[in-house]
Amino acid sequence: MCAGPAAELGVTLSVLAEADDASAALVVPHAPVGDHTQAEAVHAFARHCDVVTFDHEHVPAHVLDLLVAEGVEVHPRPEALRFAQDKLAMRERLTELGVPCPRWVRATSAADVTAFGDDVGWPVVAKTPRGGYDGKGVKVVTDAAELADWLERAATEGTGLLLEEQVPFRRELAVLLARSPSGQAAAWPVVETVQTDGICTEVLAPAPALDAGLAAAAVHAGLRVAGELDVTGVLAVELFEVDGADGAPTFVVNELAMRPHNSGHWSMDGAVTGQFEQHLRAVLDLPLGSPRPHHRWTVMANVLGGEYPELYPAYRHVMARDPEAKVHVYGKGVRPGRKIGHVNVSGGDLADLRERARHAADYIQGAVTE
Amino acid sequence: MCAGPAAELGVTLSVLAEADDASAALVVPHAPVGDHTQAEAVHAFARHCDVVTFDHEHVPAHVLDLLVAEGVEVHPRPEALRFAQDKLAMRERLTELGVPCPRWVRATSAADVTAFGDDVGWPVVAKTPRGGYDGKGVKVVTDAAELADWLERAATEGTGLLLEEQVPFRRELAVLLARSPSGQAAAWPVVETVQTDGICTEVLAPAPALDAGLAAAAVHAGLRVAGELDVTGVLAVELFEVDGADGAPTFVVNELAMRPHNSGHWSMDGAVTGQFEQHLRAVLDLPLGSPRPHHRWTVMANVLGGEYPELYPAYRHVMARDPEAKVHVYGKGVRPGRKIGHVNVSGGDLADLRERARHAADYIQGAVTE
Repeated sequence: MCAGPAAELGVTLSVLAEADDASAALVVPHAPVGDHTQAEAVHAFARHCDVVTFDHEHVPAHVLDLLVAEGVEVHPRPEALRFAQDKLAMRERLTELGVPCPRWVRATSAADVTAFGDDVGWPVVAKTPRGGYDGKGVKVVTDAAELADWLERAATEGTGLLLEEQVPFRRELAVLLARSPSGQAAAWPVVETVQTDGICTEVLAPAPALDAGLAAAAVHAGLRVAGELDVTGVLAVELFEVDGADGAPTFVVNELAMRPHNSGHWSMDGAVTGQFEQHLRAVLDLPLGSPRPHHRWTVMANVLGGEYPELYPAYRHVMARDPEAKVHVYGKGVRPGRKIGHVNVSGGDLADLRERARHAADYIQGAVTE
Repeated sequence: MCAGPAAELGVTLSVLAEADDASAALVVPHAPVGDHTQAEAVHAFARHCDVVTFDHEHVPAHVLDLLVAEGVEVHPRPEALRFAQDKLAMRERLTELGVPCPRWVRATSAADVTAFGDDVGWPVVAKTPRGGYDGKGVKVVTDAAELADWLERAATEGTGLLLEEQVPFRRELAVLLARSPSGQAAAWPVVETVQTDGICTEVLAPAPALDAGLAAAAVHAGLRVAGELDVTGVLAVELFEVDGADGAPTFVVNELAMRPHNSGHWSMDGAVTGQFEQHLRAVLDLPLGSPRPHHRWTVMANVLGGEYPELYPAYRHVMARDPEAKVHVYGKGVRPGRKIGHVNVSGGDLADLRERARHAADYIQGAVTE
């Protein structure tokens, strides 16, 4: 999704692709195939780049450290990226900074789990520090015994598990911003992310009926995290909206992502500067663009893989039904539940936009047929 | 500029490029080099395409006819494209349709020129039927002798010259629309195109203070031309706004272009569906997108090549000065006067937008330095 903005900015993209038919390789002229966990492949690739960035957090730290040691510009830098790669490191750092988090602990034994659950109340949320996404690497447990295998693996890997209280949240929000190596930062409006079975299915931009004080505090926290962690590129801060001690709404931070993020896809059509353009501007240390929305509301609905591998006939129908729907498909293989595209619609009537975005996404994935 | 929309639509683009370092080859994964006037090169290229379209009108008719004969989907089709390739054919056809044109004649001799000039008044405008653009292939003459060499060449080629009265126009307008093989059509609002030395330098979308009757008549004429000529893809109809017999404003058609056109670049940032996305949707016979503008006004300013071959430092400055400016650079070599990029700005204050778009474009081309 960086391909379009890169072409307009006159930036030549190269992608280290996992396969010849990877989504990005279909739209980027230079896309050598290589394994992002192998130092040699990454180095051979990076040698020809002015700046290296990421579309996921899974490049190992030692590979990145070597790039930096050789003088390659890497954004976000490994020292920042580790807080998106390692959820325990993230919780430690945010807690040091005084940023609101759920109560949490690092657990290495069943006794740790039991003590934490008895303290904060069961069930508790267990997370593997690394490698999780879209609900993977997360387990809600009511008993230490349910974590026996995870604890064993964590012991082997020497990492421990992250345990968090299960937060009784009102809804989920996200702060999305970009920050450049020069320190310039720009935040989009706070959005609501609607989750179904642990997967984001819908984003409402901006979050409807959001308390103005909460919105300001959330953006402030996002900008502070970006600055303190020296984040470069797009940063997504996922939040839970919760009841504060005084009954007023407040927030705790759920997760960090340091890359263009699903919660920002609405901006591709809904804002003066979309997140993929902004990420490129940020990592290249170009001045950032305005995050101003074009319309009162933009709704993004994710298209998840369904039963039908062929999307084309369905999205013809969606285009015909709604000439204002912006359909984005990723060129990924269709697997049930996999994010394979999204639809944005913008305008003044939120309920109407939600119906249209949801219908379009459902129709493409085959969940509705009329 | 189709690359971004193609990626979002999940359409795989290939480009027959004039050179390895052609603009399009920098951003499109499959860009074999070949000569668009050579049947063999075009055919070898087209064999792997579901649909073939154009970013200029200069592919010879016999090459296209051969593609069609072999069953390749070509849009616009050669029977339509000839009216954009040959200005004499265009004038004949529009006159048959009763579409308002300047008075015109086909001239093959000095006597023809003198007779026409004496009839409609000197000076007259002479045009080579083929190959002209941006003021090239157009000459304003006050005497038949000034056309001696053009007449000689036209006689050799057996084409004749197109002579037109010099229209005393108020301003230049353009109707931009797209039409699909199924016959669906959608028009953007009529725009004003501001020309400097025969080159479009600025587009105001929509045309300010445009008479509503004129706007409706112009769009109607554009849709009628598209339908009667069976145009597929984007059609630009360039108009002169003139005084009608009753003093009310009316129009005559200046030129036709059958491709995304400079007068539509504003739509890339200023409308729900930009012209490059719409062109792809049209030639693929996908349902067309909404041409609705996002904001009251969008102003597009062309960036012309200046003295400095290196654009990057200048556009850093422009981005920093105006975070809402959308800067598009084409990756073309810089030559004085060549269109190498454009800037779009949208909002509510037309005078402010014109100042900002003009300044950004001038700064990038080196015409102003602060």
